[in-house]
Order: sequence, then structure tokens, then C-alpha cells
Amino acid sequence: MDHQTLTARVRAFAEERDWQPFHTPKNLAMALAGEVGELLAELQWLTPEESVAVMDTDAGARVRAEIGDVMIYLTRLADVLGIDLVAAATEKLADSARRYPADLARGSGARAPRLHGRPG
Amino acid sequence: MDHQTLTARVRAFAEERDWQPFHTPKNLAMALAGEVGELLAELQWLTPEESVAVMDTDAGARVRAEIGDVMIYLTRLADVLGIDLVAAATEKLADSARRYPADLARGSGARAPRLHGRPG
Amino acid sequence: MDHQTLTARVRAFAEERDWQPFHTPKNLAMALAGEVGELLAELQWLTPEESVAVMDTDAGARVRAEIGDVMIYLTRLADVLGIDLVAAATEKLADSARRYPADLARGSGARAPRLHGRPG
Amino acid sequence: MDHQTLTARVRAFAEERDWQPFHTPKNLAMALAGEVGELLAELQWLTPEESVAVMDTDAGARVRAEIGDVMIYLTRLADVLGIDLVAAATEKLADSARRYPADLARGSGARAPRLHGRPG
Repeated sequence: MDHQTLTARVRAFAEERDWQPFHTPKNLAMALAGEVGELLAELQWLTPEESVAVMDTDAGARVRAEIGDVMIYLTRLADVLGIDLVAAATEKLADSARRYPADLARGSGARAPRLHGRPG
Repeated sequence: MDHQTLTARVRAFAEERDWQPFHTPKNLAMALAGEVGELLAELQWLTPEESVAVMDTDAGARVRAEIGDVMIYLTRLADVLGIDLVAAATEKLADSARRYPADLARGSGARAPRLHGRPG
Repeated sequence: MDHQTLTARVRAFAEERDWQPFHTPKNLAMALAGEVGELLAELQWLTPEESVAVMDTDAGARVRAEIGDVMIYLTRLADVLGIDLVAAATEKLADSARRYPADLARGSGARAPRLHGRPG
Repeated sequence: MDHQTLTARVRAFAEERDWQPFHTPKNLAMALAGEVGELLAELQWLTPEESVAVMDTDAGARVRAEIGDVMIYLTRLADVLGIDLVAAATEKLADSARRYPADLARGSGARAPRLHGRPG
């Protein structure tokens, strides 16, 4: 399945339940943040090394489910805003490529923290 | 472009800069949460009604860029975990459909808050 | 009770359980974000007006508990970093007062969004 | 200074700028989450060990400022909800002490993840 089909399914899911009035961008952004919080809770006490192997543990199924929840709300938020998720990400990646040329940024932890964030 | 192509591009972007050592699931989940925080900052003082029209204002371009950033980090996180984003969301949506049958959940604000969250 | 006594109690709570190894600033910041996510989940589908009256509803006790959780982790994080929470907030408030003089900022929604955030 | 004095100062700061209409619990919770996101951004690429020493680096001042911002919004949110932050945290800590007796929880990573979170 592609992301546009997912968008249509999430939209139908909401409409079948008459949940559109709840699905303002403001509310959906909060819901997205809440799901990201649940994802963080799965990883917060793990070492970085343990987090690399998390899918091989009992927590793996929960992590997959939380990733699914985050994607559902992000998809729904983008849909109500009229944004194509993959296009928006592609544009931002091109922008970051201009700001962080590979030959200058290579292996630099000092650059990485600001990769897609606020200007450093 | 589809989400698998985006995944490949984000991976190449990181590899060209030797940023793989920074890209543990733990670190990427934090980066994802940081970007969601920037998205919230764009919407936090708006009324729900204003948030519906945000793409028609000066903030629209920033919202689109933040959505792009969130999608980039979510894509990268799913990639390092070996998860297909659209598949994980589709599975979770099917699970939610079982838990919230349309005929029972219709228009219910009491149901909506727990849609993809913790059991109520 | 004052906030320093709370700090000492939270520290004792962690030490009695030998949880200091888990309580790095990185991990505690993630835990803080996770608790804020739970707080958002309580408020996400409410209208702004409903949120004003939330303490008079069934959700009030949950909101109070989540606020308590957020304060516990913020207190613990500040403690391990050697920061006095109230002093750090007071300093930042003084800084914001210089950046947003009351006579210029009054009632301005355009200013409010950046009150304590990124420079506008 | 104690936390009640801070509460009064933050309230005065908002009132002097006529920002009360923006300061609904819903909006303030979003602002709180946004500030926590900025805090995460300071720590996201650090190893746990580096995060322990962050106050000795250039990032230390930014971390202190972000902690201050988080405390300001948490204080304001608690104030508009009529909650005493220290009292709410103390109550929740007592509740956690009952749920996680020290002799059973000692050194247990399996327990720590759920300390103040959802029941395991």
C-alpha cells in the first residue's frame, strides 16, 4: 500500500465515526505529540545499544504499534492541512542538503544536532 | 514519489554525512519529539478555527516545513527499526477498527479521546 | 512544602530503589516528554473552553496526577543537572521581560506565540 | 524564592501583557510540550555519558534556559488550573511509593520504565 491509500483509509475511518469535528489541526497535533510521548516511554530507560535491538525484545511489538499510531495521526494531520507527507519531506530534505553539504558535514556531531532543526 | 523511495533518500542523506552513529532509535525518537515540539509551537496560540485556516496564513510555509521534518525523522526511525511505516499504520488502524466499531463510536467525544491511545 | 524539599524527596525515592543509573539527563528528559504527552492526551479533544473547566470534570484527577508526574521528572532532571528550578525560571522570566516589554507586547497575539520560544 | 512567589510573578507577567486569553490549559499544555521539545533537541545526539556532563559544555547555558522555560509554562499551567505544583508532585510520589515498594523495585530496570507512567 502507498501513503495516499493510507490517507484515504484514515480519512474514511474518521468519517465513519463522525470524528471530523474533533480533527482540527490543533487537536491532531496534540494527539500526534501524545503518541510520540508513548513511543518515548518505550525507549526512555534503554541504553542507545539496547534501543538498537529493541525490535528483538518483548517491547518490539509495542514500539511497532506506537510507530503505527504516530504515522496515523501524522497522516491525518497532513490530510486535513492539504499537505502530501512524502512531498513535504522530500522538499525539506532538499533544503537540508543545501544547508548541510555532505563534504562539510561528514561525521560532524556538531552539525548533526541541527540537521532538520532550528538554524545552528 | 512513494514512502519507500523517501526512506531510501533519507538513508542516503544520513550515510553521505556519516551520521549513522548518531541515528540510534533512542536518539531519533528524541529528534522526532523535538520536531513535533516545533510543530506544536506553530499552532499553540491559535484557536481551533484559526488552526483550520493556518495554511492560508504566513505560518503555512512553516507548518509545511515542520510536517516535512517530522516525516523525515519518523521515516528514518522506522528505517533503522526495520519497520514499514505504512504497513505499521495500516495494522494499527485495523486494530482500532475492531476496538471502536463505527456504529458504537459515532460522534462520541467520549470515545474519540482514546482512539489510538491508552485503553479508556 | 517547598520545591527544595520536594527535590530531596524525589532524590531519596530514586536512591532507595537504586535507580540512579537510569536517571541520566538524557533519559529523564525523555521521561519528562513522555509524561507531557500523557497530559496532552487528557486535553487534546477538548475545546479551549472545555479545557478551562477540566478540573470540574472526571478528567480533573487525571490532569492533576499528570501535572504531578511532569513536576516529579522536571524536579529530578533539574537535580541531576545541578539546577535550581525556581531560580532558572526566574532568570528566564527576567530575560523575557527585557525582550517583550509590557507596553509593546500588550494583547498581541503576534508576540505571544514566541513568548518563551524561539526568537520571532 | 519559593514556587508560590514564582507563580505570582509568572501570573503578573502574563497579566501585564494582557495574555490571559491565550493562556487556556489547552494552549499552555501545547506550549509546555514545545519547550520540552527544545530541551530534547539539546540532548538528542549526546550519549548518556555526555548528557551527564552537559552543564560543563557550551550547551549548558541553553539547557538551563530551556529548563527555565519548561518550569515557567508548567507553573503557569498549574496556576490556571488551580493546582499547587509541589503538592501535586508530593501526592503522586506517595502514590508511586505504594505502587513500587523499595524492597521489590530495587535496581530493577523492568520496574523503572513504568515508575510514573502507565501501569506495566
